Amino acid sequence: MQTWIRYLGADGRARFGQIDGKRVVEYDGPGYEDPSPTGATHAREGLQLLSPCQPAKIVALWNNFHALARKLEKPVPLHPLFLIKPATSLAGPGDAIERPKSYGGKIVYEGELGIVIGRKSRNVPVGEAASHIFGYTIVNDVTAAELIGEDPNFPQWCRAKGFDTFGCLGPAIVTELDWPNASVVTRLDGVERQNYPLSDMIFSPEEQVSRISQDVTLMPGDVIACGTSLGVGSMKDGAVVEVTIEAIGSLVNHVRG
Amino acid sequence: MQTWIRYLGADGRARFGQIDGKRVVEYDGPGYEDPSPTGATHAREGLQLLSPCQPAKIVALWNNFHALARKLEKPVPLHPLFLIKPATSLAGPGDAIERPKSYGGKIVYEGELGIVIGRKSRNVPVGEAASHIFGYTIVNDVTAAELIGEDPNFPQWCRAKGFDTFGCLGPAIVTELDWPNASVVTRLDGVERQNYPLSDMIFSPEEQVSRISQDVTLMPGDVIACGTSLGVGSMKDGAVVEVTIEAIGSLVNHVRG
Repeated sequence: MQTWIRYLGADGRARFGQIDGKRVVEYDGPGYEDPSPTGATHAREGLQLLSPCQPAKIVALWNNFHALARKLEKPVPLHPLFLIKPATSLAGPGDAIERPKSYGGKIVYEGELGIVIGRKSRNVPVGEAASHIFGYTIVNDVTAAELIGEDPNFPQWCRAKGFDTFGCLGPAIVTELDWPNASVVTRLDGVERQNYPLSDMIFSPEEQVSRISQDVTLMPGDVIACGTSLGVGSMKDGAVVEVTIEAIGSLVNHVRG
Repeated sequence: MQTWIRYLGADGRARFGQIDGKRVVEYDGPGYEDPSPTGATHAREGLQLLSPCQPAKIVALWNNFHALARKLEKPVPLHPLFLIKPATSLAGPGDAIERPKSYGGKIVYEGELGIVIGRKSRNVPVGEAASHIFGYTIVNDVTAAELIGEDPNFPQWCRAKGFDTFGCLGPAIVTELDWPNASVVTRLDGVERQNYPLSDMIFSPEEQVSRISQDVTLMPGDVIACGTSLGVGSMKDGAVVEVTIEAIGSLVNHVRG
């Protein structure tokens, strides 16, 4: 298993690296581009992490966990239900989640597993989907919850979830994940608010890649946010939110009002 | 007024150019990047046009014309209602609109005005919005209409409008447009199906740029599709669809089943 990160170099430019114990081995590109080592290594501690990839789009699922579907009294969908978060929504580890100037309502966290696409994916059979997945990261699919239903005639999913800094990714990408035995844990100001098993997912990562690739071409570095489960809640300005999947790490962000 | 196009060079790479009568003056980048002439010129006729810009996202409005709102019996929205079409949905003049393999239902045309963003736009006051608009193009906001309501709990706007080749743009970008005196005309297999005045728009181009820039940062080359009006209809496989705004030109595409 490899663990890939993106971080700020001394010259202020982004660098890519693979974690090797307490060291980071620097590469000349993202892991899914078959990069070469640059020869440089760094101490892992003290590096300023950036979002581990730069998706052109984040495909974000709604209603992909049985427990949440039961709570909302919604049937299991026949096909992944998704919206698109734009590249401009991206935030990395430690970044502030910025409250939009025009919005005074509730901002909620949604801790999720993220699938990182490794190669161009269009109409991928489910049996081949695993080879299109580069790895897994953590997503906080931040949402301006009160905007979704603001207009009764048009649910504003893209607006509510598309604000700058509302697509938090990180801290790393792991190339293998025993996801059926992993859980997503979200802590708000240190208090556990979500703790759900990924085995409760409705569409598995392979099914998601296969089915969504029938709808939109997925590009290397694109991310599918697998949807959240029970325990979603709102964050006050100043709150610190930490989403953890043990084998990947913890994604920590704070809300700036 | 300038008219900008993007076209295929003899080496198979994309080129940028400005139209000068029957000639095209080649530039080393898109018009909004302050490019320089390369010294080359071409005859305008015979050039294979590409989409005139390459948006990272297309922000597509719903319910932005009074006549269509009245017909649908929907109130005028308080804020632009939008979804996001990904970069992978892009198609250019002459390109086929590809029927998704997984979908046998109705595919509809929506002829629209497109706003091309000229510079990074975030929280832009309406009085400054004009300076953020590089120009105007034509959009055919193609839609797999039956998918929108397929799941009663989640309208699938991004899926229905996000398929590859469902974001047709072209044939050119004009840097000035007297839009209050322009109309959008859509012909299906030569028969006029839409003919509506842009003066009926609910949110003007400047209002759209200002308000949407409060939600998502707009990047140079991004496109806002201003929404459609009366006359939307479905296209059979093999149909030819032509959307015309006189001062810009005609965007012609066909459906491939």
